[in-house]
Amino acid sequence: MESCIFCRMANGQQPCLKIYDDEYALAFMDIAKDVDGHMLVIPKFHCSSILDCDAELLRHTICAVKTVTNHLVDNCGYDGVDLMNASGEAAGQSLPHFHIHIIPRRKNDGLGGTGEWPVFPGAKCDLTEMWEKLRIK
Amino acid sequence: MESCIFCRMANGQQPCLKIYDDEYALAFMDIAKDVDGHMLVIPKFHCSSILDCDAELLRHTICAVKTVTNHLVDNCGYDGVDLMNASGEAAGQSLPHFHIHIIPRRKNDGLGGTGEWPVFPGAKCDLTEMWEKLRIK
Repeated sequence: MESCIFCRMANGQQPCLKIYDDEYALAFMDIAKDVDGHMLVIPKFHCSSILDCDAELLRHTICAVKTVTNHLVDNCGYDGVDLMNASGEAAGQSLPHFHIHIIPRRKNDGLGGTGEWPVFPGAKCDLTEMWEKLRIK
Repeated sequence: MESCIFCRMANGQQPCLKIYDDEYALAFMDIAKDVDGHMLVIPKFHCSSILDCDAELLRHTICAVKTVTNHLVDNCGYDGVDLMNASGEAAGQSLPHFHIHIIPRRKNDGLGGTGEWPVFPGAKCDLTEMWEKLRIK
């Protein structure tokens, strides 16, 4: 969709800090600067949420999430991730193109303990420097 | 794994309030009673998180999430869902068998607005009654 910023990122019309992409999915740095390392993974073909996402596209999208997550733990010094998705405006979704949030986590990073969801205290690191460290080369 | 409560649910050794299952994945009511309608979706074969989840099992698990999500919106009067996952103890994961949380959402349900993640104010409805309403028959 021409009017959708995530579609425009997917087809290269809108620049983004790309972490990973393949034929079906794209991962990039979230520019919200609400927590260090915050990324989004999107399908490259438009759907508004998991509700209307084709099963095959959903598979590619979650596999991209796994690829990025494994990279963060195997190569970037993280110990885990939180994955979050809002599907539907009523669920808090702010941009109507399916996207899964990845929040990289380290032991005792202060974002939340066992059984707690992470807080978003504001990013401390420069977004472009984080991108350089975290992107899959 | 004999010692894993989610494996025991998956193979029928441990009862649970089942919402949906197929050969590879199981959805059931979360007994935490932290928010009405809270469910978990798990793969039926043990893996600790998305990090060590086989790609094919991951596909089946996310497809089960989609099946339940579509059911909640199409048949149960919800407007959307939040999906949440903690992968790794450092990310807040409390039970080491991969599980995705589904939080059913309605417009103006008071759990959070646009761009906000849901709060967990405590369940108001009886868990078994919710299960009767929400399970896929």
